[in-house]
Amino acid sequence: MLELDRLIQLLSKLPGLGPRSARRAALFLIKRRESLMEPLAAALAETAARIQPCTICGNLDTADPCALCRDPKRDRSIICVVEDMADLWAIERAAAFNGLYHVLGGTLSALDGIGPEDLRIDALTKRTVEGKVAEIILAMNATVEGQTTAHYIMDRLAETGAKVSRLAHGVPVGGELDYLDEGTLTAALKSRKQLTAD
Amino acid sequence: MLELDRLIQLLSKLPGLGPRSARRAALFLIKRRESLMEPLAAALAETAARIQPCTICGNLDTADPCALCRDPKRDRSIICVVEDMADLWAIERAAAFNGLYHVLGGTLSALDGIGPEDLRIDALTKRTVEGKVAEIILAMNATVEGQTTAHYIMDRLAETGAKVSRLAHGVPVGGELDYLDEGTLTAALKSRKQLTAD
Repeated sequence: MLELDRLIQLLSKLPGLGPRSARRAALFLIKRRESLMEPLAAALAETAARIQPCTICGNLDTADPCALCRDPKRDRSIICVVEDMADLWAIERAAAFNGLYHVLGGTLSALDGIGPEDLRIDALTKRTVEGKVAEIILAMNATVEGQTTAHYIMDRLAETGAKVSRLAHGVPVGGELDYLDEGTLTAALKSRKQLTAD
Repeated sequence: MLELDRLIQLLSKLPGLGPRSARRAALFLIKRRESLMEPLAAALAETAARIQPCTICGNLDTADPCALCRDPKRDRSIICVVEDMADLWAIERAAAFNGLYHVLGGTLSALDGIGPEDLRIDALTKRTVEGKVAEIILAMNATVEGQTTAHYIMDRLAETGAKVSRLAHGVPVGGELDYLDEGTLTAALKSRKQLTAD
């Protein structure tokens, strides 16, 4: 039973799985040995062996440069800067952006001892200058850390001459005003758009 | 990115993980490649290759007979019958039982077409007779299916002469009466125990 205990212990470390759901997941896997357990073991081993960060943008892929950086159909003159891989995936799912990305790998945080040298900021400025990039979109999270990082990057990019923008703040599509915080409502009012009848 | 997509797709099939939490888990794993991702891949592959049901009791183990059936310290005259592995683990965690187990592999269910021949009931009667077992504890879930299965097994075991018992129904330890259903309260009242001052 040692192997099973170890499997449950490892599964319980995943976010969203506690000891109880890890046991359920282990039993679920054992009952689906060929259809799920073996393919999952192979996928984990293969991903662990082959995936690596792209040296250009920091995206994770089995190839370097990554599929996004190599795609000839993407607009090389615009770079979207994100904190983390999860944010890149979220923007790709929206399918509303056709430029390149730059994954910072976190945010500035004095508390956690994360300074500019720990993020891929130097690489971003270098890339902006060398790649003749016209616009940088700072798509940080709307948190204190995210906005601090965005301000710092904006200062650093000033010398490059590239246009720097950030995502709009406002009411989420489908959102109800009653449930929104004051900060969002203030931002949405400030950035209000005039409606024109045409 | 194909490997990663496949990994996320497989992870999202686990109980308790949806597409969103599967993405989170995949990123979490990639960031802990050596400490978690590779060990998990190895544990899954090893468990898939080596684990099998014990031919005596149906418990899952890498050895056959399983560690519980081989343990000389366990009482061979008493067998606890459970529906599933998860129930066996729950009783083992309570550490209140020192006999052997018998895992049925489910419950009788006309709806799902599960009959007595699909469960390990013949093996149980054979084991009871051949092993000179004195008592069988039916530890089925307190559901309709579980109780139907328990009744069926009780009938089948009548000819063996072994004593058959079931788990007590009553108020869960730490439970509040206000939150209990009528069935549990009725059972707890019926099985009330006299208190003696001594």
